[in-house]
Amino acid sequence: MKRIKLTVAYDGTDYCGWQIQPNGITVEKVLNRALSRLTGEDIAVTGASRTDAGVHARGNVAVFDTASTIPPERFSYAVNTLLPEDVVVVKSEEVAADWHPRYQESVKTYAYHILNCEMPDPVQRKYVWHVNCPLDLEKMRTAAEYLTGEHDFKSFCSIHTGAKTTVRTIYSMDVERSGEVITIRVSGNGFLYNMVRIITGTLVEAGRGFRQPESVKELLDADERGKAGPTAPAQGLLLESIEYR
Amino acid sequence: MKRIKLTVAYDGTDYCGWQIQPNGITVEKVLNRALSRLTGEDIAVTGASRTDAGVHARGNVAVFDTASTIPPERFSYAVNTLLPEDVVVVKSEEVAADWHPRYQESVKTYAYHILNCEMPDPVQRKYVWHVNCPLDLEKMRTAAEYLTGEHDFKSFCSIHTGAKTTVRTIYSMDVERSGEVITIRVSGNGFLYNMVRIITGTLVEAGRGFRQPESVKELLDADERGKAGPTAPAQGLLLESIEYR
Repeated sequence: MKRIKLTVAYDGTDYCGWQIQPNGITVEKVLNRALSRLTGEDIAVTGASRTDAGVHARGNVAVFDTASTIPPERFSYAVNTLLPEDVVVVKSEEVAADWHPRYQESVKTYAYHILNCEMPDPVQRKYVWHVNCPLDLEKMRTAAEYLTGEHDFKSFCSIHTGAKTTVRTIYSMDVERSGEVITIRVSGNGFLYNMVRIITGTLVEAGRGFRQPESVKELLDADERGKAGPTAPAQGLLLESIEYR
Repeated sequence: MKRIKLTVAYDGTDYCGWQIQPNGITVEKVLNRALSRLTGEDIAVTGASRTDAGVHARGNVAVFDTASTIPPERFSYAVNTLLPEDVVVVKSEEVAADWHPRYQESVKTYAYHILNCEMPDPVQRKYVWHVNCPLDLEKMRTAAEYLTGEHDFKSFCSIHTGAKTTVRTIYSMDVERSGEVITIRVSGNGFLYNMVRIITGTLVEAGRGFRQPESVKELLDADERGKAGPTAPAQGLLLESIEYR
């Protein structure tokens, strides 16, 4: 048996997220189906990040065990021929038999894309959040600086179940504008449920002048979900990469 | 009666192009339907560029006449509430009663996007042509230079019907790379049927080393469609703007 690590990209638009559910098609489900068909085995992958419905990825990670003789680095090419065009395995490689994508230190990087102009753009509509009022980038950056570092992010989490602790470390957070698109790029050791989308909603409130950038300080180490900003829509979020040390 | 000029953006993925046809939904059709519903009149727009099935636009232009009392610059907002989310009127304004979007000098700018890397990207798949072999940008630029200026582009046209002359002027053509995306941006006084896509297919042949950049010289002023490159796929093409002098 070999353990194979996959790097997976997908357009989340037509999926009910990553994780298998009773109703609705998920990325995990189409991966399992294609890998099972390819190997003739009953494959169930273990994913690193359970992205929500509508969220996209360029670098989610999953592993599975197989007795297949397909060379590990060829799995990507072989399985892509059996996957729908909105799911692509961009890399496959063998890892140690006890390697697990969730039980070790990693740096996850998400990008949130905001289209900041008056009119919506039909070409980008599935990949951005359209915000049509002016946003002050300096205020968004000031707010972002307060969030960098190790904090209890309880106020930035939709549901408390699941996570043993709500303390997380954000290594870096950048707010950049390129033309009409503002990208919030955040790297951390892990993120709570909806955390990046709530951070984005909060930074947009600061950028609009609806809240003082300093107000995010009070949210940290508190339990004030109601005082953080709204959850930004799913389609603007992209899981860029997960890097293991 | 007022003549209203619209600047129209759309995601061409789900449309059989701009122009109304017996079968299939077109951008022109959904615009006519929304404007007719808005005004209570029987509106039929006249478009500037009849983009093909799957081709996108940020700045196509259309006009229509109306007795409506809606202020010209408010038409965009009003009609957008009646349009599907993949068609957006980004601007509306009054023009002279004899202003016609096709019968006067204009500069049309198209962008063709190529994703140049090994694996396809599900998130960009509807907006790029994925070319997975290395492309030499300098060779593409050399080929592009030969095409700039006034030439008979008969060899770069799929069907000869319709156009009175196959002479066109390309004002500028840029080939730029940003990360894994190569953009070919071309401005001209008009383009023949499939011309930008055939130019793209030809430049990609030059970039792959399948043809000498100099070979495009022989295609100009000739009638050699068979010797030009293949027609690049529709989804990589975007009509960026039409500017009137």
